[in-house]
Amino acid sequence: MNCPHAPPLRGSLPPKGANPPWGGPAASWCLPTIGAMTFLDQLRTAERQNGSLLCVGLDPEPAKFPEQWRGDASRIFDFCAAIVDATADLAMAFKPQIAYFAAHRAEAQLERLIAHMRSAAPQVPVILDAKRGDIGSTAEQYAIEAFERYGADAVTLSPFMGFDSVAPYLKYHGKGAFLLCRTSNPGGDDLQSQRLASVDGQPLLYEHIARLVQGLWNLNGQLGLVVGATYPAEIERVRALAPTVPLLIPGVGAQGGDAAATVKAGWRAVAGETVSPIVVNSSRAILYASSGSDFAAAARREAVRTRDVLRAACYTP
Amino acid sequence: MNCPHAPPLRGSLPPKGANPPWGGPAASWCLPTIGAMTFLDQLRTAERQNGSLLCVGLDPEPAKFPEQWRGDASRIFDFCAAIVDATADLAMAFKPQIAYFAAHRAEAQLERLIAHMRSAAPQVPVILDAKRGDIGSTAEQYAIEAFERYGADAVTLSPFMGFDSVAPYLKYHGKGAFLLCRTSNPGGDDLQSQRLASVDGQPLLYEHIARLVQGLWNLNGQLGLVVGATYPAEIERVRALAPTVPLLIPGVGAQGGDAAATVKAGWRAVAGETVSPIVVNSSRAILYASSGSDFAAAARREAVRTRDVLRAACYTP
Repeated sequence: MNCPHAPPLRGSLPPKGANPPWGGPAASWCLPTIGAMTFLDQLRTAERQNGSLLCVGLDPEPAKFPEQWRGDASRIFDFCAAIVDATADLAMAFKPQIAYFAAHRAEAQLERLIAHMRSAAPQVPVILDAKRGDIGSTAEQYAIEAFERYGADAVTLSPFMGFDSVAPYLKYHGKGAFLLCRTSNPGGDDLQSQRLASVDGQPLLYEHIARLVQGLWNLNGQLGLVVGATYPAEIERVRALAPTVPLLIPGVGAQGGDAAATVKAGWRAVAGETVSPIVVNSSRAILYASSGSDFAAAARREAVRTRDVLRAACYTP
Repeated sequence: MNCPHAPPLRGSLPPKGANPPWGGPAASWCLPTIGAMTFLDQLRTAERQNGSLLCVGLDPEPAKFPEQWRGDASRIFDFCAAIVDATADLAMAFKPQIAYFAAHRAEAQLERLIAHMRSAAPQVPVILDAKRGDIGSTAEQYAIEAFERYGADAVTLSPFMGFDSVAPYLKYHGKGAFLLCRTSNPGGDDLQSQRLASVDGQPLLYEHIARLVQGLWNLNGQLGLVVGATYPAEIERVRALAPTVPLLIPGVGAQGGDAAATVKAGWRAVAGETVSPIVVNSSRAILYASSGSDFAAAARREAVRTRDVLRAACYTP
């Protein structure tokens, strides 16, 4: 059982369209223990408190900043902090993408930004999108970067180098790790959708990864999966293979994924409590909703709109 | 044809144990054109000038520094620069592993270190070991980080997200990218050695990647492969599938790979010119050859020893 608080699933999935977890009292078996908050607890708490499945992705591009800051990489913190302030009560998670900081020598701004998230939105977990994947000794260094230097609550990882490239992150109790499973970029098919002759049942590569993350690799419930929003049928397939792990689902918004179909494919609740969490990410559609000085207000409007689409889908059978 | 300077292979591999490229005049077809030096040209030039197949990996761990600097992350530059100075005439390439810098907030030291490599060893190319792998728009940011911010000549990448996660790096003409293929860490088998039912001939996943990198993905000869030194038979298999791309081979030295077997499995030359380059990495065995104040001299001795083992293997049929 991956979630230490959830009741046993008894071999069946919770029904689609069960009551969402916000607006009512939390079932006592799902209340986090103070001082022992796992990443899954944090996700559930944020989902309940903000009534949201929305992850706000922070991919700062100075060329798209409002006119007064345009092209100025020293304003990355200011831009992202304004987005955080505008969406702190709407987000289930924040997901800064480290590449956009590294390209501009903005590691110090990323440190400040995550510290700002802690004060502006203490209930919202932070997922560092880094997609690291390396041998154990190097993975230890990347884990220090993600969890100690930046203080992230979770990180995204590539499974390509196998379990020992993931294990060092699991030593950080309470932290989470989302492993790439089925990505919806044009080349996502190139390797992930190859059928494996050497595994029982001949699953596709991404199906095999979903099974490993639900089972063998998930030593103490810290793992999740990254599944693109573009193909809801594949989210549904991953959910069937990995019924309780959290799914991080990018691709809603600018990338064209259908928000409502995403929820229906991936989210499940029982008795008012989410047992199959999903974290639905939108980055550019929120960040760059306006290129004017009203960018933060426009970001908030877009975040409200997306949050509401996701919420509505939870109620629809 | 991936190497613009090499003669056609006419369907057969060059013989093992042909003359190595140092010590004699270069064949005219392999001389790099001034101003149009590709990464493959750089590798060949460094191999010839330094008479070496050795890549010196820079994985700085302050806890292992000599006593006067032990535990002091502000000495990462000093430690690594001393290693570079001690091995500048022995290395075919330098490979800093970015995780070891990121864990210690040492990005500025990495920038200084690569600048120092340029002045101390201008003929030795720099491979930034980062194993990035992300969607195209994010890959563009990582390419800026590797090639513009740090000025690396090549980068290591994960192929897991498919060709569009690699393509942005190929826009930097003259730069190289080594894609993970078969890694020799304990979990390397978990995914890489799965057999693909959906590809002609049912290759293993790593064999499929080797074919893609030799052929379809290698638009203009910038790609190489990462293959661990622990299993020479697998290096030989990758070399058969990818006869001309450079192989970056970590795992010699502290990780236990056999240096001579590695050369025999992967390196091929014709008429005194390398047509199948290999870049054989050793990190810890060189960096931490001594924990005393003689660490740089000890690193040099270990680098000479490894270089000579690799050279000797080139002469042995």
